[in-house]
Amino acid sequence: MLSKNKIKQIQSLNRKKIRDESGLFLVEGNKMVEESLRSGFIIETLICTSEFIQAHPEIRMRAQEIIETDSELIHKASLLQNPQDSLAIVRMPDTTNPTENFENELILALDFIQDPGNLGTILRIADWFGIHNVICSENTVDVYNPKVVQASMGAIFRVKTKYTQLDDFLNRAKDSGIPVYGTFLEGENIYSEKLTRNGILILGNEGNGISESAAKFVTQKLFIPSFSSEPNQPESLNVAIAAAICCSEFRRR
Amino acid sequence: MLSKNKIKQIQSLNRKKIRDESGLFLVEGNKMVEESLRSGFIIETLICTSEFIQAHPEIRMRAQEIIETDSELIHKASLLQNPQDSLAIVRMPDTTNPTENFENELILALDFIQDPGNLGTILRIADWFGIHNVICSENTVDVYNPKVVQASMGAIFRVKTKYTQLDDFLNRAKDSGIPVYGTFLEGENIYSEKLTRNGILILGNEGNGISESAAKFVTQKLFIPSFSSEPNQPESLNVAIAAAICCSEFRRR
Repeated sequence: MLSKNKIKQIQSLNRKKIRDESGLFLVEGNKMVEESLRSGFIIETLICTSEFIQAHPEIRMRAQEIIETDSELIHKASLLQNPQDSLAIVRMPDTTNPTENFENELILALDFIQDPGNLGTILRIADWFGIHNVICSENTVDVYNPKVVQASMGAIFRVKTKYTQLDDFLNRAKDSGIPVYGTFLEGENIYSEKLTRNGILILGNEGNGISESAAKFVTQKLFIPSFSSEPNQPESLNVAIAAAICCSEFRRR
Repeated sequence: MLSKNKIKQIQSLNRKKIRDESGLFLVEGNKMVEESLRSGFIIETLICTSEFIQAHPEIRMRAQEIIETDSELIHKASLLQNPQDSLAIVRMPDTTNPTENFENELILALDFIQDPGNLGTILRIADWFGIHNVICSENTVDVYNPKVVQASMGAIFRVKTKYTQLDDFLNRAKDSGIPVYGTFLEGENIYSEKLTRNGILILGNEGNGISESAAKFVTQKLFIPSFSSEPNQPESLNVAIAAAICCSEFRRR
């Protein structure tokens, strides 16, 4: 049975402090729980209905603890508006890999992305376009925020994220001669620019774009041109939309 | 001063029934209100602080009624979590234009888009890529839903939307020989397909994609290829992300 204490633990994972201290995060909704079962992540606790267990026999091998309960109690524990038949408490992977080598791949660097939906969507885009590493500035929203996990649609189990001091990271990249891309109003038309197969693409904050301190390290400024003929031109694209168009341009060539 | 009745009217515009009966919708947040001032839309009532009026002298010409009040009362009336110094009650434009001619332009057809954020984002993408007309199935979320208005970031004032029986519309288009595009898992790689300058691009429901009844009218099936090398392939892209990549491909050529 699902104890009151367990429900308390589940709900406490909505708070970053608790997640950081415990190294655990919450996965909600059947599709996302199925993704966690297929992933290499350690599932500490799986809370689900008996029907869900029957439909997923691999659960017994994957989850360290299984709590069988009814939908009603899952609804009580869940942070979702429309909870389903399962939720999982999952251990964050270790990201303290000492040797990084980003020279030959395209990676994304997130400069103060604030909105959980945007971060989740950006991970989903990275996943689609075969981008394995996403570097996040320390002020970017936490990737284990339940809304990010949800919006990622499983990408969180495949795309590696690392929080770091972004300027230091970009500085090291520049020193290694890795191209650093970013979109700016005064940039070059992305459709006609030569783009490398490797490099770092910086995505800036929703309201303010790429910060001045990160912009210093950009070696190639890009611009997604607008095709609007209206007298009141649209000002900008949403950051996830811009990310999608940029990734599409890097990959199609 | 902002009366209790006016606050009631503002908040009632959260309901589609009230919006449809009155022909009015709500515009919140300074940036969006500024967009409404620059638009050709009729502003029935503008509620704002005296500072906002001073900063926008054109208000006297644009708004039929101006209610000067303090931020506190605007906060009380607003549906936003972080309201600002202004909100406007705006008249919906007339969309009963009898002669439509879509033969020479690229237009979007939305097939049961449910999420207000997605609809707003799709309008913003259309605006950026110079797409002037978006046709919505009758079960698509209402474009004057306050969350759609907000997510559109002003695109709602520039991109024309029309709700109609989608299958009839697509049938007429097909009869006129207009190319009808849609993305399908079995479609052709969008990066290498020939795309016309005109045509209709169908965007399908978040969970179920393009409906069978609309799919019948598609003359060219497209597919955005994934570049993932993971054993667990990502299943799909968010509909707004797919829209952005498709529009980018149609326009860049």
